[in-house]
Amino acid sequence: MNDAREVVVLRYGHRPGRDDRMTTHVGLTARALGADRVIFPDNAGQSAETVRGVTDRFGGPFAVELRDDQKAIVRNFEGIVVHLTMYGERVQEVEEAVREAVGLATDGEAGGATGAASTPRDLLVVVGGEKVPWALYERADFNVGVTNQPHSEVAGLAVFLDRLFEGAELDREWADADRRVVPEATGKTVVDADGDPREKGGDGGDGSEDGTAAGDEPDDRD
Amino acid sequence: MNDAREVVVLRYGHRPGRDDRMTTHVGLTARALGADRVIFPDNAGQSAETVRGVTDRFGGPFAVELRDDQKAIVRNFEGIVVHLTMYGERVQEVEEAVREAVGLATDGEAGGATGAASTPRDLLVVVGGEKVPWALYERADFNVGVTNQPHSEVAGLAVFLDRLFEGAELDREWADADRRVVPEATGKTVVDADGDPREKGGDGGDGSEDGTAAGDEPDDRD
Repeated sequence: MNDAREVVVLRYGHRPGRDDRMTTHVGLTARALGADRVIFPDNAGQSAETVRGVTDRFGGPFAVELRDDQKAIVRNFEGIVVHLTMYGERVQEVEEAVREAVGLATDGEAGGATGAASTPRDLLVVVGGEKVPWALYERADFNVGVTNQPHSEVAGLAVFLDRLFEGAELDREWADADRRVVPEATGKTVVDADGDPREKGGDGGDGSEDGTAAGDEPDDRD
Repeated sequence: MNDAREVVVLRYGHRPGRDDRMTTHVGLTARALGADRVIFPDNAGQSAETVRGVTDRFGGPFAVELRDDQKAIVRNFEGIVVHLTMYGERVQEVEEAVREAVGLATDGEAGGATGAASTPRDLLVVVGGEKVPWALYERADFNVGVTNQPHSEVAGLAVFLDRLFEGAELDREWADADRRVVPEATGKTVVDADGDPREKGGDGGDGSEDGTAAGDEPDDRD
């Protein structure tokens, strides 16, 4: 989302079948909420294809990688590593330190007066799937809990990214999209990249719940 | 989370098997991020049991209901209805209006000077699963898009709740918990409700990734 630094989401661990949908949602959430790249374990090829397909249609830039060396990626990452875990420090207490570490805080926020941003650094956000190794807790510059309650790695990632970027990710623009949803109070409007009507749902009256109208979720999302 | 109003999350539609995990995560996210109650379709009994189990162990109050009358719930809800959809208005543009509508905005925010909150009203947040009926778009007081990109209903719910409560949900306290995670920079510490050590993971060295140590995700989360 920003040329100055790369924000990468690493999905740590994936059980084919059982985790397909969660892994896909981790990737789509990373894309939608401002990350530049997602790395999946190499056994998550189906999820990778789904996320690439969404990027092809709805735009980027956003990269999807399959890698078999997750431990090494974490160990050797040249930048700041955040591990999202329910055992970590409260996000509301460390988010400013994370922003400062990666250059997303301004001096103004950090107590200075110039308003200049701190130095940009790349950020790896690790989202656990299967059991994660203890070495990850030790390597992470920040173990961060979006609440210390059990809930959802997708929810934790979403809240973390929204807070990291302080909402700026919601205003990002997309390149090379072939379609675009038009936000509206009541409607389901999708237009081509050039703004021409593409499909229009929601005018089917009572019949739309039988699956004949344009769905609220892309059919191939997972 | 607040006596003045009830925030209810309605999972609209559920396909047993395929949606079990997503529905569970919707429920756990609702609980963790400040909602008071979640309503699942009556074919989502397994997800309901999981969320109730987490509430039993990690605290509440949080209610889980199974209902077969989702259309009627939406139609007859006495309060404000928000429908989360990628076709909706941008969350960053309507969140203040939602807060105002349910009494979470103060006059100060709305432009007044007294700082008094607006009148509390109950809020129903509808999260789509299967195709949702067009009537839902029409009944909703707000159709809200957490981005207009395809991603995850769990991510959308998480960001919406965090913005609705302006982060206050992260500080909520839990009643009747039998265990509590201690937030820390590096560690996996769970204590009993009275503060006594309960289990301690993360000291197993390299062996923790083989599944023998305490997992990062509760085993019964889904």
